[in-house]
Amino acid sequence: MPIDFKKELENAARSMILVHDPDLLIKTIIRAVVEKARINHASVLLYDPKRQAYVLKISGGSLAKKIPVGFASLDKDDPLIRFFRERNSRSIFKSDILTLKNAQRALQGSDINGRLEGLLKDALYQIKLLDTVACIPSYFRDELLCLFLLGEKKDGKEYLGKELDFFLALASNMAMAIRNAQLFKDLESELNKKHQLFMRTTIALVAAIEAKDNYTHGHTTRVASLSLQIARRLKEKNKKIVNERFMENLHIASLLHDVGKIGISEHILNKKSGLTVGEYNRIKEHPLIGATILKPIKELEESIVGIKYHHERPDGCGYPDGLKGQEIPLIASIISVADAFDAMTTDRPYRPALFRDKAVKEISRLSNVQFNPSVTEAFMELCLEGVF
Amino acid sequence: MPIDFKKELENAARSMILVHDPDLLIKTIIRAVVEKARINHASVLLYDPKRQAYVLKISGGSLAKKIPVGFASLDKDDPLIRFFRERNSRSIFKSDILTLKNAQRALQGSDINGRLEGLLKDALYQIKLLDTVACIPSYFRDELLCLFLLGEKKDGKEYLGKELDFFLALASNMAMAIRNAQLFKDLESELNKKHQLFMRTTIALVAAIEAKDNYTHGHTTRVASLSLQIARRLKEKNKKIVNERFMENLHIASLLHDVGKIGISEHILNKKSGLTVGEYNRIKEHPLIGATILKPIKELEESIVGIKYHHERPDGCGYPDGLKGQEIPLIASIISVADAFDAMTTDRPYRPALFRDKAVKEISRLSNVQFNPSVTEAFMELCLEGVF
Repeated sequence: MPIDFKKELENAARSMILVHDPDLLIKTIIRAVVEKARINHASVLLYDPKRQAYVLKISGGSLAKKIPVGFASLDKDDPLIRFFRERNSRSIFKSDILTLKNAQRALQGSDINGRLEGLLKDALYQIKLLDTVACIPSYFRDELLCLFLLGEKKDGKEYLGKELDFFLALASNMAMAIRNAQLFKDLESELNKKHQLFMRTTIALVAAIEAKDNYTHGHTTRVASLSLQIARRLKEKNKKIVNERFMENLHIASLLHDVGKIGISEHILNKKSGLTVGEYNRIKEHPLIGATILKPIKELEESIVGIKYHHERPDGCGYPDGLKGQEIPLIASIISVADAFDAMTTDRPYRPALFRDKAVKEISRLSNVQFNPSVTEAFMELCLEGVF
Repeated sequence: MPIDFKKELENAARSMILVHDPDLLIKTIIRAVVEKARINHASVLLYDPKRQAYVLKISGGSLAKKIPVGFASLDKDDPLIRFFRERNSRSIFKSDILTLKNAQRALQGSDINGRLEGLLKDALYQIKLLDTVACIPSYFRDELLCLFLLGEKKDGKEYLGKELDFFLALASNMAMAIRNAQLFKDLESELNKKHQLFMRTTIALVAAIEAKDNYTHGHTTRVASLSLQIARRLKEKNKKIVNERFMENLHIASLLHDVGKIGISEHILNKKSGLTVGEYNRIKEHPLIGATILKPIKELEESIVGIKYHHERPDGCGYPDGLKGQEIPLIASIISVADAFDAMTTDRPYRPALFRDKAVKEISRLSNVQFNPSVTEAFMELCLEGVF
């Protein structure tokens, strides 16, 4: 049964548009072409702007074994590429397509000039190396974007004109789909960059703020790292609560959990002798000050909860609101354990560091008193495994 | 000459994929359909997830005048929408398409059950109100995404089967293109949100840092606003230098220009009596401290230049590097003028505020000495116009 080209083209166009990974797109199309059109093999040379070269994309099959070393990519000066970039095909064959037969016929004839003859000969040599009988280019705004390389048909017959027309239309659609996919990738990479910029700037500013407090060097990044590890362990137990968004909010909240200390004067933060009740109460305001600083930023709503409540305790003796048990949001409970562990194991102005094992025991002892029991459990597991 | 449907479909598919604005996409297609297929008018009902309704998109033309009030959008309970959402068309006509003629014929026959008959009658009533002779649905993953409404052909004849098939294929392609466009818009909006998050968090943290220095409340945001206004004026004179990227870097740099003050102790920053030479030298380190804090962030490279050099002077007497004239980057020169003007016109621990006019004169006097002459010129123009 002959293939219905119109229908195939429609289907191909439809399936192409929502594939936003250029590599996957090309592989899918090549596979469909090889199967539906009953071709021994097909491949595509796709332009890679970074490498300034045309990279060969193959869909499995027999060509992979035959491909000569050094043909994984062709640069702009390669004769086959030059032949199509300069649109010589159209000037010789009245079509964008180059077939092995047409090329051989043209070289036997006398209509071709010397320079073109040389180029076509070199191009033909490469086509043969690639076991190709038809090359179909795809241009986007006059730039050669990719080159379809078709092997022989399974029945050994020559390609019909309408078959080649179909492949030309398909290649043209594919060029648009690839362009679309590349634009998508660019946008995604920009989004990723912006996220990195946000995280890195926050980390830099937090580190600068932290540097004011002589005793907490590196505290923030350690708490962030501990918090994320605890959350990952909790995720293994309950995927619903600890999803990607929760992780992102936790990351931000753990980085900013002490940002409110910027509102407390340096001499209180760095005091070596005992704090007065008034001074201690001032320090206890830091979760609320932090929440207030970030309050105008609606996108940080869920992170702010973690900052505001990271000193609450299940027994209700925490601050600022004296929340009890399940009233305390999980994001805050995670930071609470990570914060306490790091504080216990580093020197503070008012006392030296505890040994690690003593700190772990202390946290375990205070489960359900100062710390959320499930978070403590996850923390203890990680300690036993030697993660920290 | 009859239209070549295959070619039209190919062209349509190709042009659709790179239009990433759903509204523009639909308008372009409707316009092409009306022109190429010689139809009196065409329109599309497109599903809007936010409004949970199908919104009518019309391309100019005659229908706009005829459209009845209240038909700008149809909700999910509307009979015409229900008819297609429940895929009744296929059950009655063995096709997804509903034409006026087919509907009338079906209602005259006896094969249709009572409930469907009522629904079809109501749908038919609406089709007539919309001056439509054929409705072509487009589904994406079994959801009705849009409904093509075609008016009469210009020659008054009925639509041929192959014409309707063409429109069905077109509608299907359009559904994919619309979906693609919507995904693009979503990604762009996410990028925009991330940018806002970055800017707002930076502003909040900078404001918190600034609050440590009793005398500089609001200084940062005022300097940022002044800097951007000066840059916009410079842009009118030289679009090449002051492009969108420059504006973004300037915005970030102006917000962060004093971030290095976090590294200087509170008692020096808030000192009321004269500073010692040592203390003054410490304050002069703030541009370098700021640049050091942000140095790990590669994306901020160009902004850091503005932070590091905003106290350089064309006469070479500035700090930290004593750069001269054109050696000073424009981004730093702009912040320098904005910073000086705001500092002059607000109280400082060591002196009260100058009057605005005196500050303006002072800046003008120091053009090419302390300030870049083109920046000063732009600043003076804005002052004369009463912008500040």
